[in-house]
Amino acid sequence: MSKALKFELLHKDYKSKARRGRITTPHGVIESPVFMPVGTQATVKAMKPESVGDTGAQIILSNTYHLMLRPGSDIVREAGGLHEFMNWHKPILTDSGGFQVFSLGHMRKITEEGAIFSSHIDGSKHMLSPEKSIEVQNDLGSDIMMAFDECAPPNASRDYIAKSQERTTRWLKRCIEANRNPDTQALFGIMQGGFYRDLREESAEAIVELDLPGYAIGGISVGETKEEYIGVLEYAPDLLPSDKPRYVMGIGTPDYIFEAVEHGVDMFDCVEPTRIARHGVATTSQGRISIKNAKYERDFSPLDPECDCYTCRNYSRAYIRHLYKAGETMSHMLLSEHNLRFLSKLSEDIRKSIEEDRFMELKREFYSKYYADK
Amino acid sequence: MSKALKFELLHKDYKSKARRGRITTPHGVIESPVFMPVGTQATVKAMKPESVGDTGAQIILSNTYHLMLRPGSDIVREAGGLHEFMNWHKPILTDSGGFQVFSLGHMRKITEEGAIFSSHIDGSKHMLSPEKSIEVQNDLGSDIMMAFDECAPPNASRDYIAKSQERTTRWLKRCIEANRNPDTQALFGIMQGGFYRDLREESAEAIVELDLPGYAIGGISVGETKEEYIGVLEYAPDLLPSDKPRYVMGIGTPDYIFEAVEHGVDMFDCVEPTRIARHGVATTSQGRISIKNAKYERDFSPLDPECDCYTCRNYSRAYIRHLYKAGETMSHMLLSEHNLRFLSKLSEDIRKSIEEDRFMELKREFYSKYYADK
Repeated sequence: MSKALKFELLHKDYKSKARRGRITTPHGVIESPVFMPVGTQATVKAMKPESVGDTGAQIILSNTYHLMLRPGSDIVREAGGLHEFMNWHKPILTDSGGFQVFSLGHMRKITEEGAIFSSHIDGSKHMLSPEKSIEVQNDLGSDIMMAFDECAPPNASRDYIAKSQERTTRWLKRCIEANRNPDTQALFGIMQGGFYRDLREESAEAIVELDLPGYAIGGISVGETKEEYIGVLEYAPDLLPSDKPRYVMGIGTPDYIFEAVEHGVDMFDCVEPTRIARHGVATTSQGRISIKNAKYERDFSPLDPECDCYTCRNYSRAYIRHLYKAGETMSHMLLSEHNLRFLSKLSEDIRKSIEEDRFMELKREFYSKYYADK
Repeated sequence: MSKALKFELLHKDYKSKARRGRITTPHGVIESPVFMPVGTQATVKAMKPESVGDTGAQIILSNTYHLMLRPGSDIVREAGGLHEFMNWHKPILTDSGGFQVFSLGHMRKITEEGAIFSSHIDGSKHMLSPEKSIEVQNDLGSDIMMAFDECAPPNASRDYIAKSQERTTRWLKRCIEANRNPDTQALFGIMQGGFYRDLREESAEAIVELDLPGYAIGGISVGETKEEYIGVLEYAPDLLPSDKPRYVMGIGTPDYIFEAVEHGVDMFDCVEPTRIARHGVATTSQGRISIKNAKYERDFSPLDPECDCYTCRNYSRAYIRHLYKAGETMSHMLLSEHNLRFLSKLSEDIRKSIEEDRFMELKREFYSKYYADK
């Protein structure tokens, strides 16, 4: 059993595979299912960490690729680790950097050793390997580290995906070996295999055998259709041990969250709530609204009448629209805080519904309002 | 006596003209001398109002010109006034819009009636007159309103300045007439007259006769040298009644503040602390620092070791430098909060020094550290 992370399965929903769990880390307890806001560059964009905490966030995600390139993980280590550096003292999960190497880096070359890429910032050449990814994540001092994997393109051939998935397992073993802090930093493995059930089964079998403290289902939040996403969810979580947390990376819309939870997933993250905030979009219990819209010019009601967040308690749509039109940072601050609270509150509602065996009812009720206009 | 504003002169410094005062407004008490942060577009840029308050700010300034054009003062009025609209419940001072018409507007024409200008936002044509300025400020509901004046260009002829100053007095009388809320919104007059002492005396005599609740010394924060600025300060405050607050608009560097206070000024404002913050500059007890500088890359000390602000309590120079280099809004948030706290703390120190008759000693001590590198 991992000393760095403990998972307790508190309750299983009666009519779905939804699970109510509790994850204990060196920086505190996380009640699951849990949505994790993203602080890519050691900051959740346009928010103080206290404001992030006020939304109900229990854990944030930060990005190894970005922090390795800037400011450099040695600086974060010298600062006393990422928690200290960014003034966030609750749990942190770091990704492996793999996904960004494949999506942001240039001139990459993948070998058995790792990936060679050029920085998107200054073009400088770097190598990311299982050992290097874990070294950086050890420097950052995150509570949960992700194994370095290749997220194969969704349009890759079956043969490529099979080979890539096998390499991901070999890389996972090197990650385990490389972890300098197994007692304080829990390493999660990542299941790959694309949309091929037999490859997913092979992947799961290989990584479960390594008895890691948690597992992610990789490669289903990028480029897939919602049907393909649900298709994998229908069997993939069951391939993972029920006494370990299960994580789907990069999802953050209510419908994707409901589907993940319904199929037994405990953790998810996404940049979307803060990204759409910067484009003037708020997620509300009645669906999304674009604050630019002229109809909000004299709308003195809050973004979401059902929301209890700082933004909705203190500001009107008319004010936020004014800020957005005037190019004021405060519009990003207020919309980001609301959007994060929306997903934290949704997670709270989901947890309560599981405890009360009415998760599917919650899903129905939520959809009936959220999609009322559709 | 004005019902909207009360001024108490609590103590006069023994060795200078510095005054310790107290201004009471409908939204609360202001201890003077006081620095007022600027929230141009109904927001102090990149700061929540709670954070502005945390820096010790007692009153903020907001801009009539900007709010009249966007979102429109009718919308602010319908929202319940500016305090409610922007969630700042302490005192607010609004300027008249005059200065921005002359600095930001295009194709302007000045007549006895007022100023015709084109919006810097969309080119639309507008008129700002004494009546219109007060109407907008009444809509905004500020505690202190400024009279609509012409801030004549510093290079204008003596003849022009003399005529402009006389018109400013005629405009002031129209402002007084136009004020719908004399019991809740105090109107300040503005002394003009350029760098001509006799014109300043004429201006002061004319506006003091109108027995307003406070007075500003206009036209000395733009385009003048520091010698010209001090030259006017040496006689101008004495031309104003000692039992009314005195305000110099648009100053916010420590040396300009010290000079103003030394000569009997009670109030001042400036966009500079938040503007330089967005360019990565912090004001500290040891002078200004540019956080971009490579020497801060591994500097884990706070921006200013003597500062007690949120930023200095929780973040290092290395972290703020990282945020700034990475283009993160959080760098603006943290630097703005520090820079505002710096000037609020300076004001606190100044007030205490006046109470203890050691203002000139404080000035000397402050300069010896602030300019140590110069």
